[in-house]
Amino acid sequence: MARGGYSCLKGTGTIAPMDSLTDVQGLLVGHAQRTGDGWLTGTTVVLAPEGGAVAAVDVRGGGPSTRETDALDPRNLVQRVEAVVLTGGSAFGLDAVSGVVSWLEEQGRGFRLDEDPAHVVPVVPAACLFDLGRGGDWHARPDAALGREAAGNATTTVRQGNAGAGTGAVAGGLKGGVGSASTVLPSGVTVAALAAVNAAGSVLAPDTGALYGEFWEPGRPEFPAPERHAEAQRRLGEAREESARRLAATVRPSLNTTLAVVATDADLTRAQAQKLAGTAHDGLARAVRPAHLLNDGDSVFTLATGRHPVDGPALNELLGAGADVLTRSVVRGVLAAESVDGDGGMFPSYRELYGRP
Amino acid sequence: MARGGYSCLKGTGTIAPMDSLTDVQGLLVGHAQRTGDGWLTGTTVVLAPEGGAVAAVDVRGGGPSTRETDALDPRNLVQRVEAVVLTGGSAFGLDAVSGVVSWLEEQGRGFRLDEDPAHVVPVVPAACLFDLGRGGDWHARPDAALGREAAGNATTTVRQGNAGAGTGAVAGGLKGGVGSASTVLPSGVTVAALAAVNAAGSVLAPDTGALYGEFWEPGRPEFPAPERHAEAQRRLGEAREESARRLAATVRPSLNTTLAVVATDADLTRAQAQKLAGTAHDGLARAVRPAHLLNDGDSVFTLATGRHPVDGPALNELLGAGADVLTRSVVRGVLAAESVDGDGGMFPSYRELYGRP
Repeated sequence: MARGGYSCLKGTGTIAPMDSLTDVQGLLVGHAQRTGDGWLTGTTVVLAPEGGAVAAVDVRGGGPSTRETDALDPRNLVQRVEAVVLTGGSAFGLDAVSGVVSWLEEQGRGFRLDEDPAHVVPVVPAACLFDLGRGGDWHARPDAALGREAAGNATTTVRQGNAGAGTGAVAGGLKGGVGSASTVLPSGVTVAALAAVNAAGSVLAPDTGALYGEFWEPGRPEFPAPERHAEAQRRLGEAREESARRLAATVRPSLNTTLAVVATDADLTRAQAQKLAGTAHDGLARAVRPAHLLNDGDSVFTLATGRHPVDGPALNELLGAGADVLTRSVVRGVLAAESVDGDGGMFPSYRELYGRP
Repeated sequence: MARGGYSCLKGTGTIAPMDSLTDVQGLLVGHAQRTGDGWLTGTTVVLAPEGGAVAAVDVRGGGPSTRETDALDPRNLVQRVEAVVLTGGSAFGLDAVSGVVSWLEEQGRGFRLDEDPAHVVPVVPAACLFDLGRGGDWHARPDAALGREAAGNATTTVRQGNAGAGTGAVAGGLKGGVGSASTVLPSGVTVAALAAVNAAGSVLAPDTGALYGEFWEPGRPEFPAPERHAEAQRRLGEAREESARRLAATVRPSLNTTLAVVATDADLTRAQAQKLAGTAHDGLARAVRPAHLLNDGDSVFTLATGRHPVDGPALNELLGAGADVLTRSVVRGVLAAESVDGDGGMFPSYRELYGRP
């Protein structure tokens, strides 16, 4: 890890105890994935505390595939949601949400229609990323059973790297994955993010191999030795060619998408939560270049649990920190990812190529 | 200048001849400003070729102040605009647009209502930035006469630094200004930007003094010597205190705003132009941290002159390059700015503090 670990970015407070999304009290993260035998995909569920959280979304990519995002418009009916789902499997993978919806219904969690506690409609916003064919089988995609499994796995320990929605993630040819980070602001508010990094753009500077997202850490960024970078680029080029040979469909067309959830224990209105989702995209832009293209479906959801009131200055601090924790989540996702060499292609990890611990 | 001048960012083509907005053929830029005797503000007009250009806007800051932005919604009537105005003077400065509108009317340029060439309505989208009181007089703001003067000054030579809308600009305590940059893509399409850098956030890394926007240039970024950075920060702190003493109103509340125009000779639909405005904000986020806060009115306009058809891949390339030229425009604006020491405050330039040529 660079310069003494993922210390928080200057001015954004201190790192929260777990440095992950579940530092926001009450949130749980559940992954489920399938690998091998043509599979390399998965689903991640972020569960809100019972009773739900204020939620919002900002879809900035040009190729989004989503579910229940219109319900999050601050003008619309549903005030809180019980869960957000990020999933692999492109548009097909949205089926995983069905499993989460039925799991929530069984627990009586969702939008209450009347006094009968069984009469709930769980509104579960979701977005998917493109990982079709990366395990070798174009038709191996998350389904309702996998979504249900992810919900059942929800816990406070957030596994990073090749897990959940990050299982089949690839970022600019490198293996991508799930990353998470969090911070506690001077106001006492916690802000955290979780990203499934599957970017069409690059997470590293092409001339040096330095991770863009590490430019924003305190001190000077870590630059790989030039010969290490040259060798890494050579190996990455070979891996791309080999992937193209194994399953041409996985590399053409080049569809990707980075998905994220930014969460806070602040008491935000739905409109404020939407603003937070928007500024969080800045954190993505600082870690991935280019971002938000037509072949990315880059989307950021926000969840606010409402424990801490915020005023104007604290809200600005929160907006800045939301971007920063997302930047760090991308870095952590890339560094946690492990190389995959399977039927659908060779996706080497940054750690392996650049010899990072 | 860092590493051999402002070379283009990797993968985005070559630098266009003037490395400024007017590399997009037919565009002209006019500045007008007033300084001294309480004044430190100005207006910048970007003139489209006669007959107008396809235009769009993406307002991402939380404190915008704009005019005619609703007309740019792709669903709405007006298809092309003759000019875009960026101006100082906060909401009051929007008066400068009136001068541009009447100047265009006199030339018979605008939305045609019937066969009478005099029956035109010039729709001039505009946004303002906050620079009130920076010259010492809270009431010294651009007006219609200044807008008319800026339109009359329009030329292919783009003055950078303390000019036009950048005259009273301040970026994180440093003197801000107007910057511009451009690139020619492999497809032959030119993409260019002009920014008036007046950010609430910082353009430099607090630990090192390196310009965020230079992280994205080829090679390793230039880091100031630690002792130079320490001295620069000391002087910047003193300047802030002195500014607060001279005119408390200029620093509390801390309102700012970075405004930009991204232009291209590509043939874009209005919706594509809006997408370009959106992704260009990524370039702002890479040069200013934090950006898009509640006290920024960060807005990006786009103009497309329609000379080059673009397909999907070329459009993606254009989207990435739009962000990159905006990043470079911010860097160039900061490096072109000159220190101001006046009745409204002390605003040292990066060049002076860090000894850059």
